Amino acid sequence: MSEARKTKYKRGISTRQRIVERSVELFNRASVQSVAIEHIAGDLGMSPGNLTYHFRHKRDLIRAALDLLQQRLRETVGRPTIKSPRQAGIYVVHGLRALWEFRFFFNSLVYLLGNDPELRKEYQDFQRWAVAAVADDLRQLQQSGYFSPPEPPNSVTAVVENMWAQWLNWLRMQQIDNPLAATPSNAALYDCAFHIWSLCQPYLQPAFAKAVLQEFETLLADVTREPALFLTRGA
Amino acid sequence: MSEARKTKYKRGISTRQRIVERSVELFNRASVQSVAIEHIAGDLGMSPGNLTYHFRHKRDLIRAALDLLQQRLRETVGRPTIKSPRQAGIYVVHGLRALWEFRFFFNSLVYLLGNDPELRKEYQDFQRWAVAAVADDLRQLQQSGYFSPPEPPNSVTAVVENMWAQWLNWLRMQQIDNPLAATPSNAALYDCAFHIWSLCQPYLQPAFAKAVLQEFETLLADVTREPALFLTRGA
Repeated sequence: MSEARKTKYKRGISTRQRIVERSVELFNRASVQSVAIEHIAGDLGMSPGNLTYHFRHKRDLIRAALDLLQQRLRETVGRPTIKSPRQAGIYVVHGLRALWEFRFFFNSLVYLLGNDPELRKEYQDFQRWAVAAVADDLRQLQQSGYFSPPEPPNSVTAVVENMWAQWLNWLRMQQIDNPLAATPSNAALYDCAFHIWSLCQPYLQPAFAKAVLQEFETLLADVTREPALFLTRGA
Repeated sequence: MSEARKTKYKRGISTRQRIVERSVELFNRASVQSVAIEHIAGDLGMSPGNLTYHFRHKRDLIRAALDLLQQRLRETVGRPTIKSPRQAGIYVVHGLRALWEFRFFFNSLVYLLGNDPELRKEYQDFQRWAVAAVADDLRQLQQSGYFSPPEPPNSVTAVVENMWAQWLNWLRMQQIDNPLAATPSNAALYDCAFHIWSLCQPYLQPAFAKAVLQEFETLLADVTREPALFLTRGA
């Protein structure tokens, strides 16, 4: 059964959601610029009229994709569940994988936001929400003594904003190194996780910090123990 | 006198360098994709043949731009001159301004490197050099007791790579928010400098860290004291 058919026959999801999910897959594979509404309809075995009944313009579809991304991230972030190094490791790796599934969006930020002030505002709201949610999750770790916040005027928010920048830059480098990869390699994911860990390490209890790094290694098991820093990728 | 003429009559620089400098200005203004060799020649009042005598293909010009960027950065980084908060403040602000002058390159990484493995290699070498040079400059601060390196396996290199990611992401956001700006606003520069400072703060002697932030405020004087975090830009 083809990918498109599999998507088509997934049970329990609405036509609307089916269109959004498949569009995200197609945007990730090609580029958001090159995938037309007609192409998506054809791929789903649907008439263009049926698709535009749900999404009048491509920009409506992109907005719906941003909503879906936020929904997916909510499955990981903003839930006070981190009580062990294992959970912290899963949190980071799951979060990175969820964002990866919407890589077209982050890798097309200039194109998507440059000419659409409304979408820019929606993206900024989304980004603000994501940073605040991750910052709250970090602060939760204070209760168990695993985390001590930075000295003001440095802040948990600034630390998380730097994580966000690291993530976005890593994603762009992945696009350059391996534009067609359906999933990132474990070594590449470890590299990103390591840099995010590096940002938090000064604020983490030393034994906890060490254990989280070990969890990354376990979760991304085919990775050598030596951190493969992003500058050495493809060199 | 027009910008082009001013560039043309600058004394003491070779035709070759004049071409590179003007190309960088033109690439920054439009996009590297949309500026043709003929356009650059016309702008410089030069025949296309004369220009291609110096640079056969656009990619040769882009390589020369990368060399010029490295030359410019060498005026700031990799020199053991930081002995005071003032010098640290100038170092960051000068470094950011030097990189800004070549923003077309960073904002076109996917386009430029995606289809040119040789340029990708050259860029990776450049990036590795820049990160190593900044890391050395940070380590120099150890001698004066202003800096204590991170606990392994965290490293100065990882901290500087995160700075690099922050810088690149900031630049992309500038391109979205204000694509035609000839210079970044002081508030925007402060925002980037603040995030870079946030990355270093855990490793800096507290009084030195505080003084560096005050230097940013002095150097970028029209900025309010409240850090304008990047998420609030344009909101």
